[in-house]
Amino acid sequence: MNGPHPTYVDGSPAANSIRARRLGIDTRYEAVVFMHKECQICRSEGFTAHARVLLRSKNQQVIATLYQVTGGLIGHDEAILSEPAWQRLELTEGESIAVSHPAPLDSLSHIRSLIYGNQLGESAFHAIIGDIVDGQYSDIHLSSFLTACAARPLDHNEVLALTHAMVEAGDRMAWPAGIIADKHSVGGLPGNRTTPIIVAIVASCGITMPKTSSRAITSPAGTADTMETLAPVQLATADIRRVVECEGGCVVWGGAVNLSPADDILIRVERAIDLDSEGQMIASILSKKIAAGATHLVIDLPIGPTAKVRSDQAAQALAAGLASVGDAFGLKTKVVSADGSEPVGRGIGPALEARDVLAVLKCDPGAPADLRQKAIALAGALLELTNFAGPNQGEAVAAQALDGGRAWAKFQRICEAQGGMRTPPTSRQQRPILAEQSGRVRAIDNRRIGRLAKLAGAPDDKAAGLDLHVRVGDRVERGQPLCTVHADAPGELAYAFDYAAANRDIISIFEP
Amino acid sequence: MNGPHPTYVDGSPAANSIRARRLGIDTRYEAVVFMHKECQICRSEGFTAHARVLLRSKNQQVIATLYQVTGGLIGHDEAILSEPAWQRLELTEGESIAVSHPAPLDSLSHIRSLIYGNQLGESAFHAIIGDIVDGQYSDIHLSSFLTACAARPLDHNEVLALTHAMVEAGDRMAWPAGIIADKHSVGGLPGNRTTPIIVAIVASCGITMPKTSSRAITSPAGTADTMETLAPVQLATADIRRVVECEGGCVVWGGAVNLSPADDILIRVERAIDLDSEGQMIASILSKKIAAGATHLVIDLPIGPTAKVRSDQAAQALAAGLASVGDAFGLKTKVVSADGSEPVGRGIGPALEARDVLAVLKCDPGAPADLRQKAIALAGALLELTNFAGPNQGEAVAAQALDGGRAWAKFQRICEAQGGMRTPPTSRQQRPILAEQSGRVRAIDNRRIGRLAKLAGAPDDKAAGLDLHVRVGDRVERGQPLCTVHADAPGELAYAFDYAAANRDIISIFEP
Repeated sequence: MNGPHPTYVDGSPAANSIRARRLGIDTRYEAVVFMHKECQICRSEGFTAHARVLLRSKNQQVIATLYQVTGGLIGHDEAILSEPAWQRLELTEGESIAVSHPAPLDSLSHIRSLIYGNQLGESAFHAIIGDIVDGQYSDIHLSSFLTACAARPLDHNEVLALTHAMVEAGDRMAWPAGIIADKHSVGGLPGNRTTPIIVAIVASCGITMPKTSSRAITSPAGTADTMETLAPVQLATADIRRVVECEGGCVVWGGAVNLSPADDILIRVERAIDLDSEGQMIASILSKKIAAGATHLVIDLPIGPTAKVRSDQAAQALAAGLASVGDAFGLKTKVVSADGSEPVGRGIGPALEARDVLAVLKCDPGAPADLRQKAIALAGALLELTNFAGPNQGEAVAAQALDGGRAWAKFQRICEAQGGMRTPPTSRQQRPILAEQSGRVRAIDNRRIGRLAKLAGAPDDKAAGLDLHVRVGDRVERGQPLCTVHADAPGELAYAFDYAAANRDIISIFEP
Repeated sequence: MNGPHPTYVDGSPAANSIRARRLGIDTRYEAVVFMHKECQICRSEGFTAHARVLLRSKNQQVIATLYQVTGGLIGHDEAILSEPAWQRLELTEGESIAVSHPAPLDSLSHIRSLIYGNQLGESAFHAIIGDIVDGQYSDIHLSSFLTACAARPLDHNEVLALTHAMVEAGDRMAWPAGIIADKHSVGGLPGNRTTPIIVAIVASCGITMPKTSSRAITSPAGTADTMETLAPVQLATADIRRVVECEGGCVVWGGAVNLSPADDILIRVERAIDLDSEGQMIASILSKKIAAGATHLVIDLPIGPTAKVRSDQAAQALAAGLASVGDAFGLKTKVVSADGSEPVGRGIGPALEARDVLAVLKCDPGAPADLRQKAIALAGALLELTNFAGPNQGEAVAAQALDGGRAWAKFQRICEAQGGMRTPPTSRQQRPILAEQSGRVRAIDNRRIGRLAKLAGAPDDKAAGLDLHVRVGDRVERGQPLCTVHADAPGELAYAFDYAAANRDIISIFEP
C-alpha cells in the first residue's frame, strides 16, 4: 500500500521512514513513540531515550517523546505509537511514518522574556498558544509558561492578548440571536449539578442558551456525564445548531466541538501543580465562552478553605478581572459567590445527580432545597444580566418558571430534541455507611467524598456513586445512615467500603 | 519465591500486589509503569492513564507515571516497568511490587509560596530538594520550581539554603589535605578538554586535586569519556581515595559517587527550557564541588553570543555571586572568563581530544596552542588561588611544570594508579570535508559541529568524531580540507556527510 518512498505532510520525501504499529497504549494526552535503540533511525539521527522527535504521516504531524527498547518487544523496522500519537497522525495499521529532529521551538524565547520581566504582546501569545495547540510543548514547557504567568502576573493587556490567542486557536460558534446566555462553575463541588436546571429555566424564558459541558476529568461526574443519563449529549455541530434553533437551549458535550483547545491542555498541567493564576483563570474561562458565542455569562464561584478561591478579597479581584476582560470582547460577566464548604444536593455520581435534577425540575416536595436554591440564584442572575428580569427580580422570575412547570416542559423538549429523553439507570448494589457515634455533623470532605464515589464506579458506571443523607450541622444518632453507596458489582462496593473504613472522618461528627 | 502477601519497604502488607516484568524500555530517567486498563488495581484504585502512582518493592519505592494498555501486550496480573523504575526498585525478574496512590507532595506548597513572592527558608529548600532526589517530582513540578527561581530571583540567603540542601541530599567526600583544588567549566565548547592537563600540572606541584568528571549528556564527549581512552575512570570510592593518596590527583567518572544528585535531575530540565537562572547556576556548580570536598575552585566561563553567559556584565554578576556563596561554605572561588566563540583544540570526540591532551602534556611542537594556553591559564589561576604561586606568577609556574616534563610524568603515574595507561583507539574510516570556496573562516558553529561529531559516532564510538584543520580568521583555498570526519563504519561516515551537505555553513567562509 505504501511504496518505499512515500511523501509526508510537508511534501518532503521520507528519508527516515519506519512502519507504525499500535498496541493500545493509553498515555492520556502524551504522544509517545517506542523504537528499538539500535534501529537505523535512532543511530543515524543520534536519538537518545526521552528525546523529543517529530513524527509525520501523510496528512499530519506531531512531536512525541521517544522511549528506546532494547529487548525483543519491537523490531528494528517498526515504531510503536501511543494512542494519542496514533490518532493525531490519523494512521491505519501498517502505514509508514517519518521520524526526524523537530525544528527549534522559537516561541520558548517569549516565555524566557516573560520570566525575565518583560511584557508580552499579541504576537508572542499567538506564537505560544499556537505551538501548544500544535502539540509542540512538553510538560516541561507548559509548566514553565504557567509558572511564569503566576510569578510575573499578567496585566490587563496581556490577559486580553492571551484570551484572544486562545479563542483564535480553536473553532468559534455563531448564533442568530443577539443575546446568548452562558454559565460557568469554577470550583469542584461534588453534586453541584445546577446547569441542566438553569438551561431549562433560561430557555423557557425565551433566552438562547446553547450550553456545551465537559465530562469528568478527576471528579465523579461532569455535567455531560449526568446529562447523558437523561438524553444523548454527543451531538455534531449541525445537530447542536438544530436543537438550539428549535428549543433555544441545549446541554451537550463540548468535546465534539473544538472550542479553545489550548485550555484543555493547560488545565491538566495547572491541576498537577495546583496553580491557578488570576490571568490564566480569566483567559481559560472567557476563551471557552467567547468561542461558544456567548454574550452574557454568569459564573458560579464557590469560596471555601479548600476551594480554588479561598477569600472574598480574591473573589472580588477575580470578578473585576473577568468583567473588564469580558467587556473588551463584548461579553457581559457576573460572578455569583457561593458557599464552597460542602457538596450540593444529595446524589454524587451521574445518575444520582440526574435524579436530583429531575426532582428540582418536577418540583417534587422532597427535592434538595440547596440545589434548587442555587439553580434559582444563578438563573436569576442570568435573567437580570440579560435584562429579561429587572434588578433583584431575577430569582422570583426563575422560581416562577420552575414552579409553573415551564422549565420542566422545556427540559423535556430539549431532551427530545437531543435524541430522546431517558430514565437514569439505578444501581444493583446499595449499602449505607452508618454513624459510629451520636453528635452533630461538623464537616464533609469534598475531595474524599468525591473519591469514595469514584471507587464505587462513578462516572464510568453511570448508576454508581453515593447518596448523602446528612448536611453540615445536622444532628445524627449512632447507627444512623450518613450516606448510601451505590455500585454495580459487589467488588466495587467493597473497594468503596475499604476506603471508607480507612477514612472514617470523611463525614466528621463531633459530640457537643 | 514470593508468597501471596509479601510486605514492602514501609512494612505494610501488599494489598495491591502485582508481578513486575521487564522489557528493556529505556526512558532515560523517567519511572514509567505499564498496566492493563482493566486490571484489578487500576479498577479498584480508580487509576486513569498518566496518573502518578507509588511503586514499592521490598526495599525501595519510587513514584512512576502510569500508562494503561488495552491490547494483549500485557496481562491483568503483571506490570511492565521502565528501566529506571526497575533499577530504582532493585527488582529481580518475577518479583512482586505494590501499587498505590502516592501521598500528597507537601513541598509543592513551598514552590507556590516562592511563585507568590515569598522568601523561602532552609527547611523549605530541604523539603523541595529531598522530594526531588526521592524521585517524587514529575517534569511539571521540576519545571515549575526552576521557572519560579528564575522569575523571582533567589537572594543570597536563598541561594545559600538551596546550595546547602543540594549538598546534604547526597554523599560528601573528605580529604586529609588542608587544600583541595577543583575546576569547573560552565559552557559547552567542543574540544575544551583542559581538565586532564590542569590536574597533571596542579598535582605535580604537590596540590591535591581529586577530580570527578561527567560523561557526555548531549555533547560529543565528556571529560570522563575522553579520560577513559587513556585510563580506567569507573573507580569505587575506596579506589579513588587510594589514587589520590598516592598521586595527589585523579580524573575519574563522578557517576560512581553520589555528589549533589539533585543537580543531575535539575540540569536536564533546565536544558529543555534553556533556562539558567543565576541562583540555580551557583547552587548547581558549588554544591557538586562542596560535596567533593573542594576548598579552592577555578571556574572556566566562556562568554559568547551563543554561550550560556553572553555578556561581561552577566559574567561579573555570576562571579560575584559564586565568590560570596562559596565564601560562606569555606570554598575560595575564582572565575576565569574565556572566549567562547569557537572550539578549543583540534579534536572533537573522546580519542581525538585525548590525542590533543597528550600532545600538550608531551610538549609536542604541533600541540594545539589554544588548548595549551587555556590549560596554563586555568592551572595558573588555581596555583595563585591556593597561594602556591604569587600574584601573576601562576601561569609561569604552570608552564614550567608542563615544559619541565613534571606534569607529563604525573599524568602517567595517575593513569597507572587508576588501573593502567591506555593508547586511545584510532578510527577505521576518515574523510575530509573540503572548502567549497576560497576566503577566510568567518565562524565555526559550536552546536552544529558537535552534532556532526555525534553523527559520526561520538561518544559511544570512542575513536569517532572530527578533527578541525582551521580556526576562525584562517585563510583557506577552495578544495582545502576544513576538517576530517572520523568514524568506525562507512554508514556513520555517510550520516555525518549527509548532515554536512545539508549544513554547509557549519564552518562559514567569506570572501573579503
